[in-house]
Amino acid sequence: MATNNIRYYEEQQCSVQWRSFLAAFSAEFASKGEVKDLRAFMYQLGRTMASGFNVADGSSLQALEACMNRVWAEMNWGWVELVEEADALVVAHHASPLKIAFGADALNWSPALLEGMYAQWFESLGMDKSLRLSQRDGVFEEGQLFVFDLKKQLEEPSYFTRR
Amino acid sequence: MATNNIRYYEEQQCSVQWRSFLAAFSAEFASKGEVKDLRAFMYQLGRTMASGFNVADGSSLQALEACMNRVWAEMNWGWVELVEEADALVVAHHASPLKIAFGADALNWSPALLEGMYAQWFESLGMDKSLRLSQRDGVFEEGQLFVFDLKKQLEEPSYFTRR
Amino acid sequence: MATNNIRYYEEQQCSVQWRSFLAAFSAEFASKGEVKDLRAFMYQLGRTMASGFNVADGSSLQALEACMNRVWAEMNWGWVELVEEADALVVAHHASPLKIAFGADALNWSPALLEGMYAQWFESLGMDKSLRLSQRDGVFEEGQLFVFDLKKQLEEPSYFTRR
Amino acid sequence: MATNNIRYYEEQQCSVQWRSFLAAFSAEFASKGEVKDLRAFMYQLGRTMASGFNVADGSSLQALEACMNRVWAEMNWGWVELVEEADALVVAHHASPLKIAFGADALNWSPALLEGMYAQWFESLGMDKSLRLSQRDGVFEEGQLFVFDLKKQLEEPSYFTRR
Repeated sequence: MATNNIRYYEEQQCSVQWRSFLAAFSAEFASKGEVKDLRAFMYQLGRTMASGFNVADGSSLQALEACMNRVWAEMNWGWVELVEEADALVVAHHASPLKIAFGADALNWSPALLEGMYAQWFESLGMDKSLRLSQRDGVFEEGQLFVFDLKKQLEEPSYFTRR
Repeated sequence: MATNNIRYYEEQQCSVQWRSFLAAFSAEFASKGEVKDLRAFMYQLGRTMASGFNVADGSSLQALEACMNRVWAEMNWGWVELVEEADALVVAHHASPLKIAFGADALNWSPALLEGMYAQWFESLGMDKSLRLSQRDGVFEEGQLFVFDLKKQLEEPSYFTRR
Repeated sequence: MATNNIRYYEEQQCSVQWRSFLAAFSAEFASKGEVKDLRAFMYQLGRTMASGFNVADGSSLQALEACMNRVWAEMNWGWVELVEEADALVVAHHASPLKIAFGADALNWSPALLEGMYAQWFESLGMDKSLRLSQRDGVFEEGQLFVFDLKKQLEEPSYFTRR
Repeated sequence: MATNNIRYYEEQQCSVQWRSFLAAFSAEFASKGEVKDLRAFMYQLGRTMASGFNVADGSSLQALEACMNRVWAEMNWGWVELVEEADALVVAHHASPLKIAFGADALNWSPALLEGMYAQWFESLGMDKSLRLSQRDGVFEEGQLFVFDLKKQLEEPSYFTRR
């Protein structure tokens, strides 16, 4: 039943006002580029979106998580957990409307929107420049969970521009 | 995680426009009467509400369920399953906004609203007069599920009018 | 055209989730009491609702108006103008969803909800006890505007408790 | 007051869930192309969107208008008037969320979305191939009204592809 409830709520969550536009945008947009270009555009949109919100309290992980969750709740974009691991800060974003808005086929590029938003927020909080945020591969919990890792990108040669 | 997602969605589901009014209504209203009076009022509201919707296709259980679910989806009041059992038709209503709207304390009277709506719909479909709809005791799935049975009320003496 | 747009927006404003419930509530409720009792109940609901919001900045009329308008915008309950007149502070509430929610027939009692909210907010700000808020008679702008006056109630003998 | 109410409602109309995304999309998108390219993309999105809705009753202008207005009301995208003039069918679209969603600066390209939707609907109804829908120049009623004319395009040489 929990699964059926999740499906019900997921469907209802995405605003009827824009659902048709977003589906059309997704179809047109996806037909025009490679996944990496689609991700780059969404990532850039995410950065632009992020600037419009005030996520400024980095006094603790809890405070930062609460700050972000106020933004997400107001937009009805789900909720985030920030978890400290040995070599990374893990950003787990749950219950976003992305799958319903852009479609299941877009799940390999639509979450770059969140990646851009989190990257922008961490930068504006003065994050160490050697850290980089990137989405973990794979679709988790049927597209209800996206995972991002914020960590040192040691393996990358400096002349290589990732995405 | 599924549980946390359910909680997130549940919270978001209830319209911000009326949440404060409904909470105040619930508090005032509950302070003024016995549970059975509160149920009777909600039941009556449910009957009145039901008349405003077109639930007319009783050609099959599936058709009826689909008909009801169109109403529920449009209102964002959850979804229903109709299940035929040996001695009853079971009406299982999932994911309604009642708990968040009227509060967890109101769960012993707020679902009478649904009872009234279903009773009205079954009657308007020409249901056998000897059948009666009544809510099964107990809070299921933390208030995300209400169960109603439509069945013969043999045990009731005819001179007794229940509620 | 402006009039037609207003009508369009007015219709759309009231949440579909609760519109049917509120109409049923209004019909049942209105059938059970006198206008003054209906007003008293709505007024009390308004007081209870008001306590749940933070309207605390009374440093200036502008600040107070802005504070109230943040609450109203978040709930999508319209907007308020506070205007200082010679013998009263005038509270003009525009674009509320009350007419659509409770019906045009309820316009003589539904605005008592707003009266209760404003009264509670002014009291919590430490308003002079000799002042009283009361709704000005009449339906303005086809139920899109309600006017309340906050002023000394000299004409009332002290032993008379109004409402 | 009517004007202030219109502004209030206009602001509230656009879904908070997508407003930030749409503003970012508008800014990024507008920076990447000429107005005619932006219009062409929006027009194409409009055609794709239109296919998802059932606007099939062309038995009379009234019926068609009503059919379209059911779609618009469900999406909360405003309302349309169809007016027959001597040499054209005039499509007047009121109270759309386009200005708030894409911004006032986008008013020279965002309405191509509506143009594409109407064009698609008229075509699917079997409109005479010699007719063409095009938006009338100018911003009317501060972006609350867009006017489209459906008429013979005599002045266009056949080898010229407009837009």
